[in-house]
Amino acid sequence: MCELLGMSANVPTDIRFSFAGLARRGGGVGPHRDGWGVAFYEGRAARAFHDPEPAASSDIARFLGAHPIRSRTVIAHIRQANRGRVALANTHPFTRELWGRIWTFAHNGQLRGVKSLPLDFYQPVGETDSERAFCWMLDQLRSRFPALPSCRELDGEILQLSTRLARLGVFNMLLSDSRSLYAFCGKKLSCLTRRAPFGEATLIDDDRKVNFAEETGPDDCVTVVATGPLTSDETWTAIKPGALLVLREGRIAATLFLEPPGGQKHSRERIPTC
Amino acid sequence: MCELLGMSANVPTDIRFSFAGLARRGGGVGPHRDGWGVAFYEGRAARAFHDPEPAASSDIARFLGAHPIRSRTVIAHIRQANRGRVALANTHPFTRELWGRIWTFAHNGQLRGVKSLPLDFYQPVGETDSERAFCWMLDQLRSRFPALPSCRELDGEILQLSTRLARLGVFNMLLSDSRSLYAFCGKKLSCLTRRAPFGEATLIDDDRKVNFAEETGPDDCVTVVATGPLTSDETWTAIKPGALLVLREGRIAATLFLEPPGGQKHSRERIPTC
Repeated sequence: MCELLGMSANVPTDIRFSFAGLARRGGGVGPHRDGWGVAFYEGRAARAFHDPEPAASSDIARFLGAHPIRSRTVIAHIRQANRGRVALANTHPFTRELWGRIWTFAHNGQLRGVKSLPLDFYQPVGETDSERAFCWMLDQLRSRFPALPSCRELDGEILQLSTRLARLGVFNMLLSDSRSLYAFCGKKLSCLTRRAPFGEATLIDDDRKVNFAEETGPDDCVTVVATGPLTSDETWTAIKPGALLVLREGRIAATLFLEPPGGQKHSRERIPTC
Repeated sequence: MCELLGMSANVPTDIRFSFAGLARRGGGVGPHRDGWGVAFYEGRAARAFHDPEPAASSDIARFLGAHPIRSRTVIAHIRQANRGRVALANTHPFTRELWGRIWTFAHNGQLRGVKSLPLDFYQPVGETDSERAFCWMLDQLRSRFPALPSCRELDGEILQLSTRLARLGVFNMLLSDSRSLYAFCGKKLSCLTRRAPFGEATLIDDDRKVNFAEETGPDDCVTVVATGPLTSDETWTAIKPGALLVLREGRIAATLFLEPPGGQKHSRERIPTC
């Protein structure tokens, strides 16, 4: 399995602490040696770093550990290859442009039969099922909406598409159009919101500690989504399988289910704000 | 004016020497303080670094100066903003996917009326005329060829599109689909091929010297294209305005003119090889 890390924040935020926890799992304490990548949004564009080297020994990962790039939306991924060789073209996150925005996508899991989904406009550059699923999602969005729809319309459509992909196997996913960070839990994904009063946190895999009270302002709000909890002394929430978390400005704007466990259709716990 | 640097090589090649010459002009000895970017191809994918900071003082540029990323096709750009604010979204090179390949584009010059060119599929993320011209070129290629055409067909179409854009103002451009590096000279562009016997070279802006005989193999062949000569002791050739240089595997595969100075139509000096 690959590991995912996403962040949504209401102010440009340094993700180095969480990323350090993830990077240690990339060939350090974990088996995910087959490359890593991270995308930092700035407005509608994103700055991405990719490396087919293990994150734990990557020069670029070390550089990012020493030079904070502050962003309000970040998607990171470390890879344990199961389909597609170790190569730059197969290294998440993948990016494409749609409606004049950069879309970024990272995935953990396997999808059976994804190659039979028809592709029109977007074509994969590499060989992963993940990139193919991303191309299919964007094709579907493009054919459904000729121009950028409202957040609410987009949220609903992404829930539909994610649920459909999840039926093909395991689909844990992070996706962003720069306005929102979408986190779909097919099987395993946890989240945590940090806001005042801020406290200390210790990485599970690295003994590293940070006192967020010293690093943040009183109005900062940051939500982190990851495959598993990254810290030992904070309360992470396991996201329910089948749920799409919609994050905006550091907050959980909505938690959407198409087929919630209780049978209720398309529940919406909070109202999105964009 | 911005400055361009492109490289085509028949083996993965370290471009740090030439890039150091370019980066010095980015806020060091030159006026190009408004960001820089570089894309390194690996197969059909490219690894890009962008920074809206001046190249001469950029942490990422310093990192790249210390860590060689070897590639056979590289496009780099340093920016002096004339249209579009200093921002990541306005920082060249721009990238998009077409026919399952990453396309990369950097431009130097101004284009009058580029906003009146119709766009269909590709939309700019930033506000530059350059990104708009790139989107228009890819739209035109996509509508002309439903799938990847032969190199020869593509060469001819890119010559047509470049010549049309050059009529709008100044259009010095580097473009790649990973197979070929295209360099169109609207006004100012120089090139240089390095092959055995290799000698020494000294950067104009940096006093830095390299002995390529120590860095290369006997069969290596590298062609560099830049806005102006980067070294003082090598023979750079000024590309003729209106010419499209097609570089493959480090060699000039073709030099194409739609409207050559002598009146001869669509001359082809060499045969492309892909």
